[in-house]
Amino acid sequence: WPRTRSLNAPSPVQQFGPCGRIMKNSAMVMQIQDPASQRLTWYKPPLAVLVIKKVRDSTVLSPFVQLVEWLIQEKHMVVWVESAVLDDPLLIQDKKFQNIKDKCVTFKDGRDDLTDRIDFIICLGGDGTLLYASLLFQQSVPPVMAFHLGSLGFLTPFQFQNFQDQVTNVLEGHAALTLRSRLRCIIVRKNYKDHKNDSDRNDLAECDSSGVNSINNSNALPSTNILVLNEVVIDRGPSPYLSNIDLFLDGRHITSVQGDGLIVSSPSGSTAYALAAGASMVHPSVPAIMITPICPHSLSFRPIVVPAGVELKISISPDSRNTSWVSFDGRNRQELLHGDSLRVTTSIYPVPSICSQDQISDWFDSLAECLHWNVRKRQKCLD
Amino acid sequence: WPRTRSLNAPSPVQQFGPCGRIMKNSAMVMQIQDPASQRLTWYKPPLAVLVIKKVRDSTVLSPFVQLVEWLIQEKHMVVWVESAVLDDPLLIQDKKFQNIKDKCVTFKDGRDDLTDRIDFIICLGGDGTLLYASLLFQQSVPPVMAFHLGSLGFLTPFQFQNFQDQVTNVLEGHAALTLRSRLRCIIVRKNYKDHKNDSDRNDLAECDSSGVNSINNSNALPSTNILVLNEVVIDRGPSPYLSNIDLFLDGRHITSVQGDGLIVSSPSGSTAYALAAGASMVHPSVPAIMITPICPHSLSFRPIVVPAGVELKISISPDSRNTSWVSFDGRNRQELLHGDSLRVTTSIYPVPSICSQDQISDWFDSLAECLHWNVRKRQKCLD
Amino acid sequence: WPRTRSLNAPSPVQQFGPCGRIMKNSAMVMQIQDPASQRLTWYKPPLAVLVIKKVRDSTVLSPFVQLVEWLIQEKHMVVWVESAVLDDPLLIQDKKFQNIKDKCVTFKDGRDDLTDRIDFIICLGGDGTLLYASLLFQQSVPPVMAFHLGSLGFLTPFQFQNFQDQVTNVLEGHAALTLRSRLRCIIVRKNYKDHKNDSDRNDLAECDSSGVNSINNSNALPSTNILVLNEVVIDRGPSPYLSNIDLFLDGRHITSVQGDGLIVSSPSGSTAYALAAGASMVHPSVPAIMITPICPHSLSFRPIVVPAGVELKISISPDSRNTSWVSFDGRNRQELLHGDSLRVTTSIYPVPSICSQDQISDWFDSLAECLHWNVRKRQKCLD
Amino acid sequence: WPRTRSLNAPSPVQQFGPCGRIMKNSAMVMQIQDPASQRLTWYKPPLAVLVIKKVRDSTVLSPFVQLVEWLIQEKHMVVWVESAVLDDPLLIQDKKFQNIKDKCVTFKDGRDDLTDRIDFIICLGGDGTLLYASLLFQQSVPPVMAFHLGSLGFLTPFQFQNFQDQVTNVLEGHAALTLRSRLRCIIVRKNYKDHKNDSDRNDLAECDSSGVNSINNSNALPSTNILVLNEVVIDRGPSPYLSNIDLFLDGRHITSVQGDGLIVSSPSGSTAYALAAGASMVHPSVPAIMITPICPHSLSFRPIVVPAGVELKISISPDSRNTSWVSFDGRNRQELLHGDSLRVTTSIYPVPSICSQDQISDWFDSLAECLHWNVRKRQKCLD
Repeated sequence: WPRTRSLNAPSPVQQFGPCGRIMKNSAMVMQIQDPASQRLTWYKPPLAVLVIKKVRDSTVLSPFVQLVEWLIQEKHMVVWVESAVLDDPLLIQDKKFQNIKDKCVTFKDGRDDLTDRIDFIICLGGDGTLLYASLLFQQSVPPVMAFHLGSLGFLTPFQFQNFQDQVTNVLEGHAALTLRSRLRCIIVRKNYKDHKNDSDRNDLAECDSSGVNSINNSNALPSTNILVLNEVVIDRGPSPYLSNIDLFLDGRHITSVQGDGLIVSSPSGSTAYALAAGASMVHPSVPAIMITPICPHSLSFRPIVVPAGVELKISISPDSRNTSWVSFDGRNRQELLHGDSLRVTTSIYPVPSICSQDQISDWFDSLAECLHWNVRKRQKCLD
Repeated sequence: WPRTRSLNAPSPVQQFGPCGRIMKNSAMVMQIQDPASQRLTWYKPPLAVLVIKKVRDSTVLSPFVQLVEWLIQEKHMVVWVESAVLDDPLLIQDKKFQNIKDKCVTFKDGRDDLTDRIDFIICLGGDGTLLYASLLFQQSVPPVMAFHLGSLGFLTPFQFQNFQDQVTNVLEGHAALTLRSRLRCIIVRKNYKDHKNDSDRNDLAECDSSGVNSINNSNALPSTNILVLNEVVIDRGPSPYLSNIDLFLDGRHITSVQGDGLIVSSPSGSTAYALAAGASMVHPSVPAIMITPICPHSLSFRPIVVPAGVELKISISPDSRNTSWVSFDGRNRQELLHGDSLRVTTSIYPVPSICSQDQISDWFDSLAECLHWNVRKRQKCLD
Repeated sequence: WPRTRSLNAPSPVQQFGPCGRIMKNSAMVMQIQDPASQRLTWYKPPLAVLVIKKVRDSTVLSPFVQLVEWLIQEKHMVVWVESAVLDDPLLIQDKKFQNIKDKCVTFKDGRDDLTDRIDFIICLGGDGTLLYASLLFQQSVPPVMAFHLGSLGFLTPFQFQNFQDQVTNVLEGHAALTLRSRLRCIIVRKNYKDHKNDSDRNDLAECDSSGVNSINNSNALPSTNILVLNEVVIDRGPSPYLSNIDLFLDGRHITSVQGDGLIVSSPSGSTAYALAAGASMVHPSVPAIMITPICPHSLSFRPIVVPAGVELKISISPDSRNTSWVSFDGRNRQELLHGDSLRVTTSIYPVPSICSQDQISDWFDSLAECLHWNVRKRQKCLD
Repeated sequence: WPRTRSLNAPSPVQQFGPCGRIMKNSAMVMQIQDPASQRLTWYKPPLAVLVIKKVRDSTVLSPFVQLVEWLIQEKHMVVWVESAVLDDPLLIQDKKFQNIKDKCVTFKDGRDDLTDRIDFIICLGGDGTLLYASLLFQQSVPPVMAFHLGSLGFLTPFQFQNFQDQVTNVLEGHAALTLRSRLRCIIVRKNYKDHKNDSDRNDLAECDSSGVNSINNSNALPSTNILVLNEVVIDRGPSPYLSNIDLFLDGRHITSVQGDGLIVSSPSGSTAYALAAGASMVHPSVPAIMITPICPHSLSFRPIVVPAGVELKISISPDSRNTSWVSFDGRNRQELLHGDSLRVTTSIYPVPSICSQDQISDWFDSLAECLHWNVRKRQKCLD
């Protein structure tokens, strides 16, 4: 356990000169364990392991087969696989896989509910596999161990080589964890509200079991309730015209966005699309939400970083000619109409992402390898 | 008390699927009261009030006299003023001030110790007055109420008009507070270390009473130990050549900086010099440290935001031709030599800055008024 | 004629020390009249004037009627109007317009050819009206005088108030001109080429009379040949996945773009969409082409400015999963398929845009008014 | 001669519709040979060659000796070397160099005038050697061939390996040239003007023979007249306070700069300091001047690119508390006082920089190798 340092700042002294004090408000006190000390432990031995592999990438097949075989035969775990994965023709032809295929438990994405059935997740491939894991588990997420195949990813810190030792180490409970905060996004539909009155109120509570979409029993669009790991994006969609979007924070109108769109991202998402749009990079253990405009038509619209506890609301400006489109970690794209609103808060269900080394080293290694962050030859050019 | 919302995110659920848990580590747990609920209360009625006014700005004189007179005559407080302020020829000519001048307590900056003598601070003028207050109080800072005269400042949210009601309101204990985190900066001198061996160890503890500079009892440069509210800047100084600076985080070498310099700032500082160097803007209640290069000679050196609990170390690269210069909130400029190092952590002594409205409204009002953040005419130009 | 200064740099001395010389190459010499000295003159008095008004903006109606009436009755000019304009119900109800309506000549956009019929163009409204004028005239463009109604535009420098004096002044030949360079864009279709063999070769010459689209006599997509005033944009369209675009300059592969897309713009376009994507602003008389990525997934993809004489080629990378979409000044959106290529060069047909003052003053006034470029209160905030 | 393409755009058609024309103004016409066709030729065989080597870099010694020996013994040229170079102790110890040392002609920088004595310049080392060559020749510059040792530089395109073939090729007159425009900078001193009345008028003409500094025959500061290849920088110098600088273009007040300073650069300089300050990169054959703020205190102060023919004037704002400092290609740092002004125009004396391949290929190779411009692994990270 190499690092015992703290990532939280020390508690501030709460006396300000001889007389000033903070007024105590016990209702607003929370206990926080330092992120640097977060380690995974197992309440009981994990048995059911979900293996997610990158699609349409033949280089993942062999590692996938090796891993599944080893988990079943050596670790005696129950391996879950999305059923479409087994339909891959290349996999079907793989002789080694024939022997273990029938031992895998399959499920159908969008039909079968995985809640409480999976103890552990292993991802093979790019950052997309982790986004998919996040999508599958819209409430509590089992611990995720993510292997990259090829170059290091922001969300995939493990090398596949000697995977046996590394998985064994994690199963024995010796792993540092990054709790990657997710954003809870709710689209409140104007018309749906009208139709259904107040019956969809509980969409606003975070514990509904229905997952991504509520039932649609009227001809209006239903509410959408979805957790994102990286970002929710509001953009102009196929329209050639600019969107006008109003942004509210805790009920206050903050600004209006004119441009290609707006990105609301978690710290994990600050190194994804927000980065391309010009954001600073935020370490995943900083409790914050990042707001970044996409190609804004104002020279002064710099990205901002706000505390993780705020509630954002986004809606189409009343005087906007156009509607907008919303997408969640790059999926579930849908139109946001006049009168609809998108609410965003930090979810209580983070993705527990297992570190290869520790939170700090994993992050800076990703910056260097994925983004070439300030990596260069000692600059002979500019002397 | 208009806002009861939270700025901290809700505590994450600490079960990850049926088996995964966070390993409890009670030594690493801290209690945090939500920043949105921070309000000032008085343990006993404040009596000694320090009034800081902007220097060399004649428009501040009349408000200064009005305020001091009112504090003495109506509020029966003891008003402290830096002695140099009273030497201002314009103030000496002010007849109204003649009557109250003798009732002010004076002190000499750099000679008299104010610790435990001041209950309350009122600033009149620009953001510089608050930086000066921060400099004066290198440990616990009395509550600060800051008036702008003219345009709103990031650190000066109050309008002077009807100051009487506003000060009274604060004295009665009804004010929201922003605890502005400060950075504790220590320069560890190579030669000084050699000279003094380990006797300056306690420089590293935050409780030494000596303030800005340790005693200098050898011919080597002493250590410097100083708290900054906005930022510590390392730059090439008068040298035409680029500095090469090594940056370490929790002992790990993170990157080398080639360029004009580096800014390490608190969230409050993200809207000061770091902003000019291209940083995103970070709300003061996000517990973070911002690292921003100044004119870096790498296209890929984007600013980063790291958790407030880390320890940064900055030193001259061994192969650098040049030394660097360090300055603290724009003051105390000094050379950083080969072998010296600058350590930066978040201090336990924030500046308790009294809000005019609340943390969120004050910040966004400053963004709009000070920075014209995304403020514009409805864009007829770009349609 | 206030300015007699030069915008072209003086000719460089072509002797380099006692022996070095430039090798003369008379085939590559061109004569350039200094942009600062460009003034409009009339070979014969202009008679036919095309009036373009902003659509869907009721505030333009009254100025439109005033202007048309004055041109017909006072100036005895023949006023051309797009026929759809006359269908506007608000205009039909306008009594004053009833009297002059029948005196207007109408044409149908996309059906009637205006070549050699229009002597002079007046635009009323936003920058969009000038983009539309550019679209209508795909070869030589008559001189354009553009009025803004409301706030100044980059392309619309004239105030409508006292339009009579200003138009008269221009008709008398006293106006400074900005020749706004346009980009000639050709999409060469892979399949179309296969179908038609070499018969569409002459698409590559700039003098075909057909305007925007070549004839489509096969089931493959035809070539597109279009001049843009601001920019041609290649983006990922409705696809959630990133495009991979290859960029060639004079036949050399320069870079591959991974991100939301790429903007190739004229200097006029540097203050339009390219600006929102982070480009520097380029004065319209700098002979250059600007290349700006849209949300690139590389920290180091800074915009570049290349000489106006180069030929650019853009195509989908062979290994890209996705196609891209191309749009021209925000219009004519179409898919770019694998094997297709987009060629971009500077056209010989600029838009002769009449200055309100002169090239320099008009541009800086637009920067200040449209973009608030470095406009601010004397900074009390950041002192 | 591989490229016969053009870098200048084709001449625009100068008829605008049936009636509009450009008014001819023969006084303002200039002839421009296309930059892509610029090749070096020799009026008579070059005999005197100046060799400039990077200082304080021992890796340059051996190539320097090889080159000088070869030029003298094989090419029978007269080699000029700055006298300080021969004082280098390492060079003195080099046995091989002993034999040729006496055959070198030496001169003293700042004392001996090189005008009309040097036919050809060879630089060995970094970009700094070319900046030094530019400084030495303040009027016509002999053709410069620049070798990098180690990584490619923006100004040093040649590899040293097989230098014999490459130099021979250039001496035979087969080389493409980039004419790198320089900026002519004049500081007009307020007090000097007062002292000297109009006698320094001819400082404003570009042909005075005195080089960098005019004679100083009074106790006021003299005018400075200097050509820069990369940039002239105005900054706050050692002052902790921001400068307020006024910027004028062709006599018109354009904007006021508040921040760390301002960079006025040639296109060559757009990839030097201006790049670090956020400018777009401009190809050296675009006739333009780039204006880039350094850490401006306005969110909206984006860099701009203006035509090469303008005249810029920079002075301290009358209400600025501070003066500023000016430096020229990183040298000759001096204070700019209240009332002084700095004038900048494009010089008629470019630096004729010999291409390794051609203007386009050399530039894009430098972008990739020096700046890693958009260079990255095919992005597995961000999928």
